[in-house]
Amino acid sequence: MDKKKDISMAVIKRLPKYYRHLAELLRNDVDRVSSKELSEKIGFTASQIRQDFNCFGGFGQQGYGYNVKELYNEISTILGLDKRYSTIIIGAGNIGQAVANYTRFEKFGFDLNGIFDVNPKLIGMKMKDIEISDIDTMDEFLKNNKTDIGIICVPHTVAQRVADTLVANGVKGIWNFAPIDIHVPENVSIENVHLSESLLTLVYLMNDLDK
Amino acid sequence: MDKKKDISMAVIKRLPKYYRHLAELLRNDVDRVSSKELSEKIGFTASQIRQDFNCFGGFGQQGYGYNVKELYNEISTILGLDKRYSTIIIGAGNIGQAVANYTRFEKFGFDLNGIFDVNPKLIGMKMKDIEISDIDTMDEFLKNNKTDIGIICVPHTVAQRVADTLVANGVKGIWNFAPIDIHVPENVSIENVHLSESLLTLVYLMNDLDK
Repeated sequence: MDKKKDISMAVIKRLPKYYRHLAELLRNDVDRVSSKELSEKIGFTASQIRQDFNCFGGFGQQGYGYNVKELYNEISTILGLDKRYSTIIIGAGNIGQAVANYTRFEKFGFDLNGIFDVNPKLIGMKMKDIEISDIDTMDEFLKNNKTDIGIICVPHTVAQRVADTLVANGVKGIWNFAPIDIHVPENVSIENVHLSESLLTLVYLMNDLDK
Repeated sequence: MDKKKDISMAVIKRLPKYYRHLAELLRNDVDRVSSKELSEKIGFTASQIRQDFNCFGGFGQQGYGYNVKELYNEISTILGLDKRYSTIIIGAGNIGQAVANYTRFEKFGFDLNGIFDVNPKLIGMKMKDIEISDIDTMDEFLKNNKTDIGIICVPHTVAQRVADTLVANGVKGIWNFAPIDIHVPENVSIENVHLSESLLTLVYLMNDLDK
């Protein structure tokens, strides 16, 4: 996979958007698409799109546009969607529940194998056929079950501690919903969904337009 | 509020992070903080931080650092958190429920005044003391109740239609959780929380490190 080297974060952040739009074209039985058509759909410039696809080795033919199915498959592979990922959720509150019930989860190749919480009222209950376990048993679970991704949905006060336990047990990806910046070693990837920051940005933009 | 003019999106996106870290300093009774200390905490460079704060007119004194309380209040005002916002949630599924129960919501000045769904099983039920209404009544609700923000938690197939109704009734801010790019006029602000894009980015980064 040498062609993936040195790709900027900006390009990487655009890949899921390409993936989503190509999936929609596929559903609508579109065979070929030009960078100009994609540009009108997605909002990036056609030249930006051609440049991005060139980072991954092309896939297009001048004048003929891109083969949608081929491009979709290639981007799936680049994104790593040709594999399956073992995941656990830590924190079975509102956000943990929403993530567990997130319908695209399994379609993308994520297997939910464990849910952990500290709340005795939740422990023993089931979400998506998985029994919520005591968070004190997480360390042992991780030692016995290879886990790729930990989804942190606990309060910000304990999020770093949860992340440390995940990392110590070889988890290589963290999807963090707690409103703090979690620190992880360089060989661990982290993506944050900071709801409050998104909401505050919205309010700022509304007030800015209101001037 | 002329000082807000011409501030780049990059700076705006950093404001909620400053706000969050300053709130934490306040909770820990810290009175003053230098750009260097903030830099170690937040991860931006000290010169970046000084430059950002200068965009809004300063607040610091060379050698003395920033007054945490003053800076916090000023950033709150800049973000528009000195006002209250009337909001409604459209879509009472998993994500709608998580947002309704999101504890920071009220603290930030958001009043949840309506929840709408299409599902007869949900209509009439209560979430956070608010009865879920038939989505067919939303247009009338909006005509009778000035609403600042609409939170879209419906499937992607109907999200644009919901947004159009919101915009036609004067809603000026949209917080969108549906996995599509919603189009709104220039005088309406939109912030997207695209969970699937975040998750796909995580998987890409994991595989990239794995090479």
